[in-house]
Amino acid sequence: MQARPEDAGELSTTDRTGLRRRRERGSHDRTVAQAILDEGLLAHVGVNDGGTTVVTPMTYARVDEQLYLHGSPANRTLRLIADGAEACVTVTLLDALVLARAAFHHSMNYRCVMLYGTGTVVEDDAEKLAASAALLEHMAAGRSADARMPSQLELRSTLIVRFAIDEGSAKVRTGGPVDEDEDLALPIWAGQIPFDLVAGTGIAEPDLPDGTAVPPYATRYPARGPVRNTDTH
Amino acid sequence: MQARPEDAGELSTTDRTGLRRRRERGSHDRTVAQAILDEGLLAHVGVNDGGTTVVTPMTYARVDEQLYLHGSPANRTLRLIADGAEACVTVTLLDALVLARAAFHHSMNYRCVMLYGTGTVVEDDAEKLAASAALLEHMAAGRSADARMPSQLELRSTLIVRFAIDEGSAKVRTGGPVDEDEDLALPIWAGQIPFDLVAGTGIAEPDLPDGTAVPPYATRYPARGPVRNTDTH
Repeated sequence: MQARPEDAGELSTTDRTGLRRRRERGSHDRTVAQAILDEGLLAHVGVNDGGTTVVTPMTYARVDEQLYLHGSPANRTLRLIADGAEACVTVTLLDALVLARAAFHHSMNYRCVMLYGTGTVVEDDAEKLAASAALLEHMAAGRSADARMPSQLELRSTLIVRFAIDEGSAKVRTGGPVDEDEDLALPIWAGQIPFDLVAGTGIAEPDLPDGTAVPPYATRYPARGPVRNTDTH
Repeated sequence: MQARPEDAGELSTTDRTGLRRRRERGSHDRTVAQAILDEGLLAHVGVNDGGTTVVTPMTYARVDEQLYLHGSPANRTLRLIADGAEACVTVTLLDALVLARAAFHHSMNYRCVMLYGTGTVVEDDAEKLAASAALLEHMAAGRSADARMPSQLELRSTLIVRFAIDEGSAKVRTGGPVDEDEDLALPIWAGQIPFDLVAGTGIAEPDLPDGTAVPPYATRYPARGPVRNTDTH
């Protein structure tokens, strides 16, 4: 199997910035990749559609070493993967804008997983049900016990694809800017502006029956990752 | 030029959910696309790298009908685009998780732009400088006046690619879940959990010279889009 660009890049020492100053790290650590996948909500899935590269946002869920992608059988990207197309599944978390003294050194702190491979259609009803539950749990812990789970007809109308978390890599940039030594005395503010994806209070449908219990994730959705912004605005 | 999947999808009426109940809308409105591109911070850029689809997160900035992508000349995706590879540039904003009564109808509210085309390397120093300023302004309004702008050497070490905002589409889902009529009486909480990408207070580098002015975006980074979560936690 050919070397993947991201794998190759990880071992490279030809990058403009030497190792001593690098704030970006490649990793094949499964724990790192799993944490990113579990925190993220959106994957960007790339496939080759008759010669055109198409990148589509999709929901997903991880179960052990598998990623489940799902959608309507009319979803073209999913259909292509179901038919055997190779895909690249990328999940990126933005952690901070990194403002350097020099325009040239502005950057971003992020955590990213890129997975490569082919998917397999989930045909077995029990696995489809388990994947449906995992997709709901990935949205909100406890949701699969609260929602009405799929009927036979609904299961048949859902296309679920299993994608192995196998070939790929994670990339993480952390820390402040890396400026040139001669710029450090400039009176230019430099640092990080941290970002968090913050959930608000749930907006209930207006027609819920009286007495419908409000689940905890609807009133106080738990932080999906490390909470860094205590002073948000 | 072949029809793009997302364009085709937009006119389709074969989708499981009839038009009456659709909450997802395709659009070729440039205003919609520009607003999404201006609010976003990360693009996911897909290219075909010798037969393998690769999706990489990148920063960008919009200037009129052009998108600028930039990075080190060692950035493989950027080099491929510089060499003429077709790319798909997707920017997605997650607005809410949509929890339906039925597992089957869980969804997401999002705004997404997908652009297709080829890029052109920016060779002209004046345009490179303007693009560098735009990339900083996209991160934080006012930053290009504060930062040290690129030297000749730095300009030569930066690969900037111009990508026309021309072929593509936007897709937007809004509103609550669409459940089956027979599920509406179930005592299951349903609704939206809104999300915002929230900036925290800037974390200054420890070695800033005394008296360095703190810019407004470092203390109170402005909201990038419509503020929806007044009651965040």
